[in-house]
Amino acid sequence: VLVRLIDLTVVVDDRGRLVASNFSDSIPFQPKRVFIISDSAPGVVRGGHSHLECHQLLIGVSGRIAVYWEDVRGENQHVLLPGGPAIYIPPLVWAKQEYLTENSALTVLASHEYRTEDYVDDPDESRRLRGLRT
Amino acid sequence: VLVRLIDLTVVVDDRGRLVASNFSDSIPFQPKRVFIISDSAPGVVRGGHSHLECHQLLIGVSGRIAVYWEDVRGENQHVLLPGGPAIYIPPLVWAKQEYLTENSALTVLASHEYRTEDYVDDPDESRRLRGLRT
Repeated sequence: VLVRLIDLTVVVDDRGRLVASNFSDSIPFQPKRVFIISDSAPGVVRGGHSHLECHQLLIGVSGRIAVYWEDVRGENQHVLLPGGPAIYIPPLVWAKQEYLTENSALTVLASHEYRTEDYVDDPDESRRLRGLRT
Repeated sequence: VLVRLIDLTVVVDDRGRLVASNFSDSIPFQPKRVFIISDSAPGVVRGGHSHLECHQLLIGVSGRIAVYWEDVRGENQHVLLPGGPAIYIPPLVWAKQEYLTENSALTVLASHEYRTEDYVDDPDESRRLRGLRT
């Protein structure tokens, strides 16, 4: 399964910006958990792991957030902006996020509840496990 | 069904703030859609309707957002802050949101995909329909 950019429905008017996504159209999983990251100073890096089972959809809410990941296509990067696209990260894709601006915020939908055992911090181990699955 | 404030798991460290919620613990529905509101100027009011079927969970991402609603307990208000609590709005509860600060942003999880026919704009009609259901 590959990382995929997900276009969002965007409606901008004088009341602000609305972005929306129907999960059945956009992602191959049913979210069981949401988490939101905010108040990260520019330069802060978070993530830095893959997941054994958890699928995630990352949506930029404000500011600019760089997502770096490694999959079978090598090392890649996408900068999340509030109007989309969002990014779908499948299991065993090692990724990290760098917060580039003040007031950046990120909303993540996850396919599983939080479990420490689901995290793989080491990119080499993540790569090895991905090789075993494909 | 009543409006309910939903406490969130909050982890703050020098990398910023993470807030999280497992849907099975927090809300009586399975989200099928996410939408995010941002770039609303202070004083902007959005919402102003109830839903025939749609349940929603509103989570403050940044800034301060006042949620006003009317249910069997009368007129009520809660200001969403980034550390929670979030607010669960059941069907046929008429609600509106006022964006109080610059850079405020709101993430909403919804139980249904978007349908125009699901919206009830008139608070009196919403009240009448709620009376028929209870």
